[in-house]
Amino acid sequence: MSVRLSAAAEYEALLDKYDTWMFDCDGVLWHGDRLIEGAIEVLSILRQRKKQILFVTNNATKSRKSYKGKFDALGVEAHVDEIYGSAYAAAVYISSVIKLPKDKKVYVIGMKGMEEELADEGVSFIGGTDPADATLQPFSLSDFALDPTVGAVVCGLDTAINYTKLSKAFQYLTRNPGCHFLATNEDSTYPAGDGLLPGAGAISAPLRYALGRDPVAIGKPAKTMLDCIQAKVHYDPARTIMVGDRLNTDILFGQNGGLATLLVLTGITSEAEITGPNASSIVPDYVTSSIGDLRTVGQ
Amino acid sequence: MSVRLSAAAEYEALLDKYDTWMFDCDGVLWHGDRLIEGAIEVLSILRQRKKQILFVTNNATKSRKSYKGKFDALGVEAHVDEIYGSAYAAAVYISSVIKLPKDKKVYVIGMKGMEEELADEGVSFIGGTDPADATLQPFSLSDFALDPTVGAVVCGLDTAINYTKLSKAFQYLTRNPGCHFLATNEDSTYPAGDGLLPGAGAISAPLRYALGRDPVAIGKPAKTMLDCIQAKVHYDPARTIMVGDRLNTDILFGQNGGLATLLVLTGITSEAEITGPNASSIVPDYVTSSIGDLRTVGQ
Repeated sequence: MSVRLSAAAEYEALLDKYDTWMFDCDGVLWHGDRLIEGAIEVLSILRQRKKQILFVTNNATKSRKSYKGKFDALGVEAHVDEIYGSAYAAAVYISSVIKLPKDKKVYVIGMKGMEEELADEGVSFIGGTDPADATLQPFSLSDFALDPTVGAVVCGLDTAINYTKLSKAFQYLTRNPGCHFLATNEDSTYPAGDGLLPGAGAISAPLRYALGRDPVAIGKPAKTMLDCIQAKVHYDPARTIMVGDRLNTDILFGQNGGLATLLVLTGITSEAEITGPNASSIVPDYVTSSIGDLRTVGQ
Repeated sequence: MSVRLSAAAEYEALLDKYDTWMFDCDGVLWHGDRLIEGAIEVLSILRQRKKQILFVTNNATKSRKSYKGKFDALGVEAHVDEIYGSAYAAAVYISSVIKLPKDKKVYVIGMKGMEEELADEGVSFIGGTDPADATLQPFSLSDFALDPTVGAVVCGLDTAINYTKLSKAFQYLTRNPGCHFLATNEDSTYPAGDGLLPGAGAISAPLRYALGRDPVAIGKPAKTMLDCIQAKVHYDPARTIMVGDRLNTDILFGQNGGLATLLVLTGITSEAEITGPNASSIVPDYVTSSIGDLRTVGQ
């Protein structure tokens, strides 16, 4: 059962107990372009107390650099090396785990952030935002030249998804032997400020369905994301807490990595999903209404 | 175990045994724009022997009228009332089974054929080929006006699929109470003449994934398609045979409807899928290499 936090002493004890604080962003620190009340003050308290802060997001549409721009615009202090996005983790996975040979390339279903992270990791790619693939015309297989050097397809959220991209990815995955199939994350939906829209998992779903096989998923809750963080920063899992708004990504991610978990109710998860007869089987260690609640500890 | 047909007497016996012949088209009568050798002669033999012929296709991109154009172009005799497509069956299902009220409408993910069949059944619709939805720009939820009269979303193969269509459909299915979710068919792929491309099932897959629920599927192997045929023509299931190239659509469809089944090997299904240790659990009554084999019976 989760501990429901409410008293100042409980928040104070939480701060004492954990040195590393991993935060999901959307639904925890902000909603679209609106800050969650108190988020800035809480992050500031953590920094004053010399806590290690990491931002762990499944957002694959932005590179870390451009995602920092989001923090800047909202007035939230953040540093690029504190930000771990699923596009970055996917690029690291391709360069360091798969070790895609230098003469091979990736076919991208995704946006600029995915391309930037691949470029930063020195991974060649095609597709993505290439205007040649930005079409709503029917796809002609007889006009298509299969590139035999495509050794992986990576799928992230792509709001310019179309049949040409899906068809090309399908050709590479069925005709290039050993072609890897990766998804930055499997979120079914994402919070768009004023509601939910289909998430990255919905973008890879057509390929998953047509192929009859699942991609390797990189983002939360997959352990791959934590492996990527572990390769870059030192932290003690026993003194680390993951703060998130989503049970099947954030909280499960923390649990998969042996971290403590704090659920906030400012995002996807509602009270009904954690209490009562239909409660989820994923149970966070702690629950609080909002990250802003931690302000009670004072500076 | 299937009966493997080869002798003229076996084909002759088959013709004696069945009065109604239901044909899948792509992979059975033609491949894309190329006729299967002997298909025209065999259909002609069946007509001379006064057999009832029905063409049962999951193709939802064409209305029956425009699908007849395909037969005409290939020189194959066919009549509109012999053609049953999944777009037509979906339209009939909406008008006759769901009985969508006249003040309600359908949001279409699909092509012109789907729209034509809905119009013919007197069903109002939006979406589809509307140029307003033909965009690769990001979808803005705040600019979207939810139409409360949308009572169903129907998904067919749509080679102009994009994020705007998926997002609108997702809004209707999550925000309009009781909104029906239909798929013309669930084919994972379709034969595009020179290879496979993602099929209609891949087009509804993002919604299926984002919603966490499955659509009502209309086309083969669903019984819905046969219900639609039954409502229009008389046939005796005991003297009816379904001829197809795909085990999990055509053959399963025939079996679900209590019909005999004949598999041809000119399409999706290979020899390895019906024999040996990895054979499918879907076993047709009869197997022959090609529909053209039936020519041996002579005129």
